Amino acid sequence: MDKEKGIVSRDKDFSEWYTQIVQKAELADLRYNVKGTIVFQPWAVLSMEKMFHYLEESLQKKGHMPYWFPTLIPEKNLKKESSHLGGFVPEVFWVTSHGKNEPIEEKLALRPTSETGFYHMFSYWIRSYKDLPFKTYQRANVFRYETKATRPFLRSREFHWIETHCAHESEEKAMLQVKEDMQTTKEVLHDIFGLPFIFFERPSWDKFPGALRTFAADVLNPDGKVVQQPSTHLLKQEFAKAFDVKFKDKEGNNKYTFLTCYGPAVSRIFASVIIVHGDDKGLKFPWEIAPIQVVIVPIDNNDEKIRKTAKSLKEQIEKFASVKIDSSEKRPGEKFNYWEMKGVPIRIDIGAKDLKNKKLTLFRRDLDKKIIVSQAKVLNEIKKIAKETTENLVKNADKLFNNKIKDAKSLSEIKKIINEGGIARIPFCSVEKQGEKCAGIIEKEINTQVRGTRFDEKQKVSGKCAVCGTKANYIVYVARAY
Amino acid sequence: MDKEKGIVSRDKDFSEWYTQIVQKAELADLRYNVKGTIVFQPWAVLSMEKMFHYLEESLQKKGHMPYWFPTLIPEKNLKKESSHLGGFVPEVFWVTSHGKNEPIEEKLALRPTSETGFYHMFSYWIRSYKDLPFKTYQRANVFRYETKATRPFLRSREFHWIETHCAHESEEKAMLQVKEDMQTTKEVLHDIFGLPFIFFERPSWDKFPGALRTFAADVLNPDGKVVQQPSTHLLKQEFAKAFDVKFKDKEGNNKYTFLTCYGPAVSRIFASVIIVHGDDKGLKFPWEIAPIQVVIVPIDNNDEKIRKTAKSLKEQIEKFASVKIDSSEKRPGEKFNYWEMKGVPIRIDIGAKDLKNKKLTLFRRDLDKKIIVSQAKVLNEIKKIAKETTENLVKNADKLFNNKIKDAKSLSEIKKIINEGGIARIPFCSVEKQGEKCAGIIEKEINTQVRGTRFDEKQKVSGKCAVCGTKANYIVYVARAY
Repeated sequence: MDKEKGIVSRDKDFSEWYTQIVQKAELADLRYNVKGTIVFQPWAVLSMEKMFHYLEESLQKKGHMPYWFPTLIPEKNLKKESSHLGGFVPEVFWVTSHGKNEPIEEKLALRPTSETGFYHMFSYWIRSYKDLPFKTYQRANVFRYETKATRPFLRSREFHWIETHCAHESEEKAMLQVKEDMQTTKEVLHDIFGLPFIFFERPSWDKFPGALRTFAADVLNPDGKVVQQPSTHLLKQEFAKAFDVKFKDKEGNNKYTFLTCYGPAVSRIFASVIIVHGDDKGLKFPWEIAPIQVVIVPIDNNDEKIRKTAKSLKEQIEKFASVKIDSSEKRPGEKFNYWEMKGVPIRIDIGAKDLKNKKLTLFRRDLDKKIIVSQAKVLNEIKKIAKETTENLVKNADKLFNNKIKDAKSLSEIKKIINEGGIARIPFCSVEKQGEKCAGIIEKEINTQVRGTRFDEKQKVSGKCAVCGTKANYIVYVARAY
Repeated sequence: MDKEKGIVSRDKDFSEWYTQIVQKAELADLRYNVKGTIVFQPWAVLSMEKMFHYLEESLQKKGHMPYWFPTLIPEKNLKKESSHLGGFVPEVFWVTSHGKNEPIEEKLALRPTSETGFYHMFSYWIRSYKDLPFKTYQRANVFRYETKATRPFLRSREFHWIETHCAHESEEKAMLQVKEDMQTTKEVLHDIFGLPFIFFERPSWDKFPGALRTFAADVLNPDGKVVQQPSTHLLKQEFAKAFDVKFKDKEGNNKYTFLTCYGPAVSRIFASVIIVHGDDKGLKFPWEIAPIQVVIVPIDNNDEKIRKTAKSLKEQIEKFASVKIDSSEKRPGEKFNYWEMKGVPIRIDIGAKDLKNKKLTLFRRDLDKKIIVSQAKVLNEIKKIAKETTENLVKNADKLFNNKIKDAKSLSEIKKIINEGGIARIPFCSVEKQGEKCAGIIEKEINTQVRGTRFDEKQKVSGKCAVCGTKANYIVYVARAY
């Protein structure tokens, strides 16, 4: 452990690095006394609120309308679609009583996800093809009684997400929605949050409970494990039938809608922001989602001229960015380390010597570089760095990610790639029942999962399945999942 | 019922007016199948999101930091402070099991309010006088098993609010926080949302469970009933003791903090926005919290020139306001009624005749007035109306409110004022135990409550208690509560 900065090296011990950064940057407190839950602290909430903003803005532009549904879902709603029920019931928290142990009218679930709430209402709201597509979303907290070990932001018994629910006229139109969801993920998670990912169609044995087709974006940790970020699903029509979500088409015939849903989990995406951009000094934030974008450090709190400059600079900056003056009693060196650890994109140091020369020292966290600029040009310089910060973070992350994907043609080659922290791309026999056996072998031998096929680009297939040696019909990606 | 516009008169049948406007403006759907809960629909959510924004902005400016706490609170936390427990237990929903009816480690409450979650963590976070004041807040949904009749936005078993929790060095400093909370209420609820209110100190028999002093803002409905909006509380020090929230003072002595909390319930405040500003045509929104600020109605959807003008106008307006073109197939008259009912502050009608004269017709909902402006000046006119809309709504509401407050010196005078839909201001014996008896008489005889004393202005007291005739020591306000 590096005594000076107090964080273990990310590449030496990723898991411990993550634990330390969550604590030291005050992102979450794990001492709340309900198992599997955490308190989200201001430095995380400020960033996640901005993440919600960009996601919601993108969804609203595409015609999704915001709702707030009740947290409680009656057991009878969950029972309507059997595969969905089977998938979620083990994870449900049940509300069964109120007051002094008086029983409630019926068992109520804390929503693990809200299909069975939304579609119950869709049956009231949708009447005609003119109502379609019917595009909704809600910002919500959801609950899952996880039995796996929880980790802050990555897996908790309560988490914060957006869920979209849409109804469409045809399967074809529903698939356009799925593609739009992928586009939203690219525009927001990649271009603004700086997270590289691949959208996979999950194999048949790894679909969302109740889905006909499931697509999910995998993001890569530096330890080689992938984290599933937003997934989007084309649901089986059984769902529309179970909740009676139908419409009259142009000819006046009653038809069932095709339902899709998409679930970007902001608190989990925040974990990837920490992990993908962070380094041994601490956090790095893309400009748009930094809790604070600029921090001003007066080198001497008692110097009148420095204090005045700090104040006037703050007033000018806060017109276009969030900014704070750190006039605490810490030594300047301590402040430098602290704000680098916190991941603030730009730090401005104001010292007496610089001021004499009408200069200021800027530290940019994207490049970990100090630059000296004239006072007159500082605002323009900040605006320039603001633009470059996210670009640089995206570029770096993309490069790292792309270098991790390698081709393999056999179990031993897969094993080598995985052990080096990579994602293996392999020829594979099937994504249906027969493939499940080969996937099982990979799982058993290398503790690694078949994540699915690419959906965004068609891939040429030739040769034999890397596991069973029969004719390959797919290119699949194999990775160790968090 | 007015057939054309479809809404009953607000002053003739306020209760039915409210029911109709909630349904017709699509603010909430009551058909969700969990008793006492509703689905908040887009037209309400868009406005309430803006309300959250203004409240959070105001709190952050005053140094409150945002947290997200778990929804679940262990029973043992609730049991720590007995008066708080007694006040809330009857309303608590309990989570007792998970999965296939497996019991949970311990009984967990859906938070009815989060003092017992926050203060549990405060004991970890606060160490020294340097940490004080410790100012937090969270945006959250809370749950109360209401046994009274529920009404959308006004009273539901789940609602949406902000709760602030703060720790202070002394009772004096805590009271400054209470005053700051009142100031926030004024700045946001009055100046932006346009809601007149009086902040009362509640009499001793009507305090928040666990509070030493309770202050609450009462807003008036046109039927003469008051609705309690944000309350702010100075808690008894028993709370800090129960949760061990202490600090070391400058001399190194351990002391208990003084805790305050404040709870603006956005979904309930939205009810007052509907009620205070609405009229027989429907909703009126203050500019800042209108779901959409400008709607453009092309009088003829098929006219190329009208279509082009609408599009270019929209592009110019959306740089500073939210705007939508209504190119649905409805007749213009239907559209006019619809958007007036929805409360959009400005409607722009684009007709062929106006266009020939390079004119546009603006309808402003604040004054229910049509004006014709030259195309060249329309953007400036919109900006002018934007400013005036909220001002006008505030002015009207204030005037109505102030006219409703009248002096009374006897039970019969109180009765007369209350039956005319007013608030009675009366000389009163006591706000402690002895006064409770007189309050009971008012309650019994007139079905009306003593709301408390004014905190914002000192009032001269003379004469005798309007109920018992002993020396009056207070001026209290009496109103029928929703």
